Amino acid sequence: MNDTNEVVVFGHRNPDTDSVVSALVFADFLRRIKINAKAYRLNDLDNETKFVLKTAGIEQPDVLPDNLPNGTKVALIDHNESQQSMENLKNMRVTYVIDHHKLGDLTTPEPVFLLFEPVGCAATLITKLYIDNQLDITQQIAMLIVSAIISDTLHFRLPTTTDKDRSIVNYLLPITKIDNVTMYANQMFEANSDLSGLSLQQILQVGFKIFLFNDQQWGVSLLYTIYPNRILESKEGLLQEMVDEKKKSNLTGILFSVVDIFKGQNYMFIIGEPERTVVREAFKANTEKQVADLGSRMSRKKDIIPCLEAYFKTNH
Amino acid sequence: MNDTNEVVVFGHRNPDTDSVVSALVFADFLRRIKINAKAYRLNDLDNETKFVLKTAGIEQPDVLPDNLPNGTKVALIDHNESQQSMENLKNMRVTYVIDHHKLGDLTTPEPVFLLFEPVGCAATLITKLYIDNQLDITQQIAMLIVSAIISDTLHFRLPTTTDKDRSIVNYLLPITKIDNVTMYANQMFEANSDLSGLSLQQILQVGFKIFLFNDQQWGVSLLYTIYPNRILESKEGLLQEMVDEKKKSNLTGILFSVVDIFKGQNYMFIIGEPERTVVREAFKANTEKQVADLGSRMSRKKDIIPCLEAYFKTNH
Repeated sequence: MNDTNEVVVFGHRNPDTDSVVSALVFADFLRRIKINAKAYRLNDLDNETKFVLKTAGIEQPDVLPDNLPNGTKVALIDHNESQQSMENLKNMRVTYVIDHHKLGDLTTPEPVFLLFEPVGCAATLITKLYIDNQLDITQQIAMLIVSAIISDTLHFRLPTTTDKDRSIVNYLLPITKIDNVTMYANQMFEANSDLSGLSLQQILQVGFKIFLFNDQQWGVSLLYTIYPNRILESKEGLLQEMVDEKKKSNLTGILFSVVDIFKGQNYMFIIGEPERTVVREAFKANTEKQVADLGSRMSRKKDIIPCLEAYFKTNH
Repeated sequence: MNDTNEVVVFGHRNPDTDSVVSALVFADFLRRIKINAKAYRLNDLDNETKFVLKTAGIEQPDVLPDNLPNGTKVALIDHNESQQSMENLKNMRVTYVIDHHKLGDLTTPEPVFLLFEPVGCAATLITKLYIDNQLDITQQIAMLIVSAIISDTLHFRLPTTTDKDRSIVNYLLPITKIDNVTMYANQMFEANSDLSGLSLQQILQVGFKIFLFNDQQWGVSLLYTIYPNRILESKEGLLQEMVDEKKKSNLTGILFSVVDIFKGQNYMFIIGEPERTVVREAFKANTEKQVADLGSRMSRKKDIIPCLEAYFKTNH
């Protein structure tokens, strides 16, 4: 099934545009430098990712086989924490990690290739690899990279956006077939906000990631949308899904935010304790209601997780 | 004492040429891209490092102050494991890590800059940063980088050496004032092998690092020398120092190797159990005597630690 010399490349468990696209692009980069590699996905793609792949004319990657031989070389893209990665990661041979998140519980038994920078998008880092290796970038790959940067920075709206992300988009746009980047970004957000056919349980899962704080597992889900009211209308049902998910996954806490892309506004759902105390203390937010106004905290990486880290560092 | 915006740059606790030089070079690189930075050392320099700095005409870095304010930005060079770093690392703000070792227990509360590649020398990676940022490299910096690569690869003898290390040396040599690189390397090895004035306890410490295997602390010391017999003559005294160090530092095990640079030969000292069993099983070595022949295992990174990792993974 899997050529043992092939590097198996994949993004995080709950695929978004950057993680899927960056896996495809990094596998392409490896093949361009004569390293056998193939991109996979760990789960179903969201509508935005499907729209991006269709527009670029690229097939969905295959689902990662669940019977990879122990010792298979893997490249972790856009993630590094075991809770966000494939099952059985500990028996794989991690060979490359390209990421722009905080460094979690990853360790390696040998020196490996790690490229982490606090930029807005993992694909920005991979583009640098093409440039540093003097490789030209095809129209399809450029389409993927520009889409990933638009997605992961919400077209430069998130505070994680850096000059590097902007300059890569400026550099690649002429190679793509995108005429009007604002219009293209809005089409992506429209696809991203299309949750038709999804159950409330699936909506909770769209932006779901698990983090470890003092050995406690916390679920932190962010849903970016241009139609926040459609989600807020289902508040009661979503709160119940959060309660169920917390129990099912044996979490210490669960947080879910609806983020209005255009207004730049975070609404965080609170099911009870210990979430209420944590949200009040970590974000200095008013938590009297079931939905707390977290203001313009749009970025999980920059506005949410560091506050939780700081809170748990002094409260354990 | 320390300007709070300054990035504090340092190598591992037991400084060798690469860790000291790479800290100096990375601090220079940061200043060149307009980031305030200063290199420090965690301990006394060995004779090889002193020879290299003197030849390049560069002052020893200051010793890291032990009262750095919490939250100071730090750059970890040529190491990432807390046991090999400054005391109080957990209260610093790790901002950059440049390394070519396995990834250990480091975690970060926020996305940071990590550049790890399995190359022979950390300075090779920093040179790439100059090149990618189109910065010219001065004669002094070129001298430092070439010296670090010669030191950490034993002038391309170690199996960790890559084409990147070789090509950086070829690229920089014309900028240095080195006429004959073989002769210069031998001068470095001569300085490295000059242990005059060191006690046996200090000789054990020269190449000493602590590693965690299954929460057990193991000391693994490698001494590279062109005069192995001078060390082997002091076998009894060194074995006693190992026993004392193991007790003092509360280690589960302690290993010490004398590596003959020119012959490419590893002699490993064994004080008793559990070391004897571990060395026999991990390296399939004959451990009947107090000094085991480990053959051409010259690299701790590539030939020693991965075998220990594999052993402890299946024996815990």
